[in-house]
Amino acid sequence: MAAVGNGAAGGGVDTKASFRQIYDTLKEELLTDPAFEFTAESHQWIDRMIDYNVLGGKCNRGLSVVDSYKLLKGADVLGEEEMFLACTLGWCIEWLQAFFLVLDDIMDDSHTRRGQPCWFRLPEVGSIAVNDGIILRNHISRILRRHFKGKPYYADLLDLFNEVEFKTASGQLLDLITTHEGEKDLTKYNISVHRRIVQYKTAYYSFYLPVACALLLSGENLDNYGDVENILVEMGTYFQVQDDYLDCYGDPQFIGKIGTDIEDYKCSWLVVQALERADENQKCILFENYGKKDPACVAKVKNLYKELNLEVVFQDYENESYKKLIADIEAQPGIAVQNVLKSFLHKIYKRQK
Amino acid sequence: MAAVGNGAAGGGVDTKASFRQIYDTLKEELLTDPAFEFTAESHQWIDRMIDYNVLGGKCNRGLSVVDSYKLLKGADVLGEEEMFLACTLGWCIEWLQAFFLVLDDIMDDSHTRRGQPCWFRLPEVGSIAVNDGIILRNHISRILRRHFKGKPYYADLLDLFNEVEFKTASGQLLDLITTHEGEKDLTKYNISVHRRIVQYKTAYYSFYLPVACALLLSGENLDNYGDVENILVEMGTYFQVQDDYLDCYGDPQFIGKIGTDIEDYKCSWLVVQALERADENQKCILFENYGKKDPACVAKVKNLYKELNLEVVFQDYENESYKKLIADIEAQPGIAVQNVLKSFLHKIYKRQK
Ligand SMILES: [Mg+2]
Ligand SMILES: [Mg+2]
Ligand SMILES: [Mg+2]
Ligand SMILES: [Mg+2]
Ligand SMILES: [Mg+2]
Ligand SMILES: [Mg+2]
Repeated sequence: MAAVGNGAAGGGVDTKASFRQIYDTLKEELLTDPAFEFTAESHQWIDRMIDYNVLGGKCNRGLSVVDSYKLLKGADVLGEEEMFLACTLGWCIEWLQAFFLVLDDIMDDSHTRRGQPCWFRLPEVGSIAVNDGIILRNHISRILRRHFKGKPYYADLLDLFNEVEFKTASGQLLDLITTHEGEKDLTKYNISVHRRIVQYKTAYYSFYLPVACALLLSGENLDNYGDVENILVEMGTYFQVQDDYLDCYGDPQFIGKIGTDIEDYKCSWLVVQALERADENQKCILFENYGKKDPACVAKVKNLYKELNLEVVFQDYENESYKKLIADIEAQPGIAVQNVLKSFLHKIYKRQK
Repeated sequence: MAAVGNGAAGGGVDTKASFRQIYDTLKEELLTDPAFEFTAESHQWIDRMIDYNVLGGKCNRGLSVVDSYKLLKGADVLGEEEMFLACTLGWCIEWLQAFFLVLDDIMDDSHTRRGQPCWFRLPEVGSIAVNDGIILRNHISRILRRHFKGKPYYADLLDLFNEVEFKTASGQLLDLITTHEGEKDLTKYNISVHRRIVQYKTAYYSFYLPVACALLLSGENLDNYGDVENILVEMGTYFQVQDDYLDCYGDPQFIGKIGTDIEDYKCSWLVVQALERADENQKCILFENYGKKDPACVAKVKNLYKELNLEVVFQDYENESYKKLIADIEAQPGIAVQNVLKSFLHKIYKRQK
């Protein structure tokens, strides 16, 4: 079987090109799926819907399946078959993300996503987007069935996607009922609630899932990788804390947007830290100004963050997290697994965007 | 192991009581699922959300898993373990239905369901209902994993629910884009579109799924039951044609509601038959009056149905369907399978509600 070469590490140019090509194959298979008799109109709808929602992102999660698998194998170059399967699992994660985002945008009443109107904002789409989200989720099952049924790890793969989806939807629920508009109640925000929302809503599918896919593809039993799961979920939490920090302190030119977590009443790591450190007076300032669009209110919150030295609190958190993560990683028995985890960590440590 | 007796056929009193009891067990397991760390608030939310959406229906689909399994085994009484498993699969279908209905009501902008406001209509719920729908779907995977992982047919069970969900969501898409408000276009309606919508949106999950669950539980390979699948999908189509007929001609006292398919511009079997039989003049009447709330318009459509003798067209269809279904059923090799299929058919043949 011909080898698909890729010299560069971390989703090099060749990997990206192969990855993109496999998207076309997967989409074509979905559009000729014998489990449904497409009409011309529904064929065209699904074709456009997939392109609109699955493409347009950076594919970090998807590509990291391929990178992780290479590190686990200790190989820079993969055979055609295993390259195809690794990319396919990567695309399943991209499809999962598309499913989450289509529905999240509806629930958050958002306007734009990846530089274009949210799918449900298109006048001809509207609430049909709810069903399109479901269809995107179903595409994952169709893809897995077509390419993995019969493999010894097929049931584990279905279980993995199911369990990660369940955790994500549960984290989403927690986020929705905690940060529910209408009854703004800062007393609900604390570090334990923040950790739970972040771990379930983001960390499992963004950090654990790509590595778990690569492990299954390598023939490993996930029951033996509980530590790896915990480390990746910790890393995902650290990543989201950075995200919360950069929303306020990052350079909009780097991040590509102007943060609005304060205006949006987000359960951000910063406000949670502020609440923990504020005296009664300072708490009043937060209660009165957090979650308001008025720039004067936002300025008062930012000022309080400064008084409470949150920038330094964050640097300390970042340094501590890094030390702890490195120690945990180096306590892992296998070198290949250590490499996978370090590769993830070094992609995000001290990032500015 | 103790036997759970049930003398009566067709979901007798005892079966219904056992079935209901198992619901409590399944819900309790979901609420203590270690895959998510519930807060008090999210625990309470899910508890209420499940009761609100899964209960309140007639449980025909769920109970028919138990009935079908008994007929396949040729046993009137099941052991405790197999009774539990059959009821559990039945509840998975009820959960699937709840998932579809929660989201369908959002997309149809409906007001009531099973005699109470639609879940998303509750002021504290709103668009969170989208995520709740997803969670209901995820509960099925959690239930199957807890009670069926390790069984030889576990992967087939996951595949079955996935494939039926995919067909249903695809049928729903077809329905949504065909009968889309805004661009009312009766020329899109014809018997082939009607058949596709009905088969995919309703027949697979309502008729095929319960029997397929019972077959898997009996250790059968579904690949050997393609004919059974086709017969059940045909039966589901016949059932929906009855539903469309009764919407216009049924006794509201029996059906429990006043039909509004004409006002709602539904792709009903009746309008499809009318379009096929109408001359140019009659077509004009349909184009001008179908899908309007005005009682005078509705009366004109009903009058046209009378002119076209649709009541007789329906009786003929019903008789032909029955004859064809009985012939197909009696061509099946196994008597037990024939009994399952006949039991379904006799529950619905010439029904008045
Ligand atoms: Mg959002
Ligand atoms: Mg959101
Ligand atoms: Mg952010
Ligand atoms: Mg509806
Ligand atoms: Mg509908
Ligand atoms: Mg109806």
